[in-house]
Amino acid sequence: MARAIIAGAGALPGLLLQAGPAHIVRLAGVENDPLDAPDIPARFERFGALFADLRAAGVKDLAFAGALSRPAFDPALMDPVTMALMPRVAGAMAQGDDALLRVIAEIFEEQGFRVIGALDLRPDLTAAQGPISGTPTDAQVRDAARARSVLDALGPLDVGQGAVAAKGQVIGIETLQGTDAMLRFVGVSLPGSGGVLVKRPKPGQDLRMDTPVIGPATVMKAAEAGLSGIEIAAGSVLVLDRDAVETACEASGISLWAAA
Amino acid sequence: MARAIIAGAGALPGLLLQAGPAHIVRLAGVENDPLDAPDIPARFERFGALFADLRAAGVKDLAFAGALSRPAFDPALMDPVTMALMPRVAGAMAQGDDALLRVIAEIFEEQGFRVIGALDLRPDLTAAQGPISGTPTDAQVRDAARARSVLDALGPLDVGQGAVAAKGQVIGIETLQGTDAMLRFVGVSLPGSGGVLVKRPKPGQDLRMDTPVIGPATVMKAAEAGLSGIEIAAGSVLVLDRDAVETACEASGISLWAAA
Repeated sequence: MARAIIAGAGALPGLLLQAGPAHIVRLAGVENDPLDAPDIPARFERFGALFADLRAAGVKDLAFAGALSRPAFDPALMDPVTMALMPRVAGAMAQGDDALLRVIAEIFEEQGFRVIGALDLRPDLTAAQGPISGTPTDAQVRDAARARSVLDALGPLDVGQGAVAAKGQVIGIETLQGTDAMLRFVGVSLPGSGGVLVKRPKPGQDLRMDTPVIGPATVMKAAEAGLSGIEIAAGSVLVLDRDAVETACEASGISLWAAA
Repeated sequence: MARAIIAGAGALPGLLLQAGPAHIVRLAGVENDPLDAPDIPARFERFGALFADLRAAGVKDLAFAGALSRPAFDPALMDPVTMALMPRVAGAMAQGDDALLRVIAEIFEEQGFRVIGALDLRPDLTAAQGPISGTPTDAQVRDAARARSVLDALGPLDVGQGAVAAKGQVIGIETLQGTDAMLRFVGVSLPGSGGVLVKRPKPGQDLRMDTPVIGPATVMKAAEAGLSGIEIAAGSVLVLDRDAVETACEASGISLWAAA
């Protein structure tokens, strides 16, 4: 049985391809990198065509890789399958990213596909509990706990995967705009805070569909925002290019660790 | 018995003075407007001196008015009373604004003063449930409910008094940096969102110490950030200069309403 990767932006599709051969589904309007694998072009407006193309390619397992930004959607291009799905998709869109992704996973599973997660394919890219680069100070551990308390409280509301605290105060909470936008806000509104970014899945989030990731760019952006540390969830945040992440931590003085 | 107003920035000290004669406590490093009332100069480092000056002026009732930003603090200037209070104040500072303000109120009350709130002095500045300018659409009411759910969830954590949602998505959550910084973030990261700002006290917050306020500037900043509406809590958010607020709403197309 063949596998397909629904490719979003960034390095994740390529890293999942390293786990074994797969078709790469490229959705119109979603940027992604060239990869040495057979392409399946697709459109958000034409789910019916995508289901048929996946079956024709013998695909059973589907992995979602990387951010699928909410694209422009041209109703005139919809095929009948997509039209029939629209009420469910539109209803879910109004409830947040998690709800939308959960419905999309359900739809593919009803069509007989199996949705697998990036964590299933590359568990080796997660971090075990403990320091990754440097060792967090007691103050950093306290700030991480404060930021984590915000993420825990917001968990059922499907808001964001990241928060920043500094000196006991919450100074950034991720919203729809994502982690990078939050880091820019923190850097502009409170330069040199020395805060700690916590990045972890939302409680109850479908990890197959929207796996939290950090990479060297995350570390650099945290450093540029004046932070001093990053805590990720052990076992459920993907570290893209760990060598480069550690080098970026050393170069910028960011401590990075994984917590239960 | 005389009254004193601990003056922070903005129009609130003057509005409280309209409720009756009072001394104006001006803390070094805190900006505030000139007012036609006797001054009591003070310093954060010299609580002992402030207690003595308040007693000498016959002050019994104390009202806190406007934001007291966390000022520079010079330990060399501390009087013995302040030194003795420092462990409590420092412990509270690490826990958030609410905790700090609660401890400050406690300290004044232990000294025999009565801490009264801006809402006690000027209940006429709050809004009754219902439209204030324009009428919210169903979509705006839904976005307000979404933003409110975030504030409710974060309530016990003492984070912020404001949140923004647009089209069902949370796009801004107030942190230490305050409402204006959040509005700038929303405007820069998601221009033209048409979102709704919800401003209400944190559940369990001591309203005497940190009354949420909106004024014409709030309306203009919300409009500049691309929002379409503002919901405030009926009876517990002060509307500074209601005529100017309504004019700003009309000029900018912002709907403003108060909800239970």
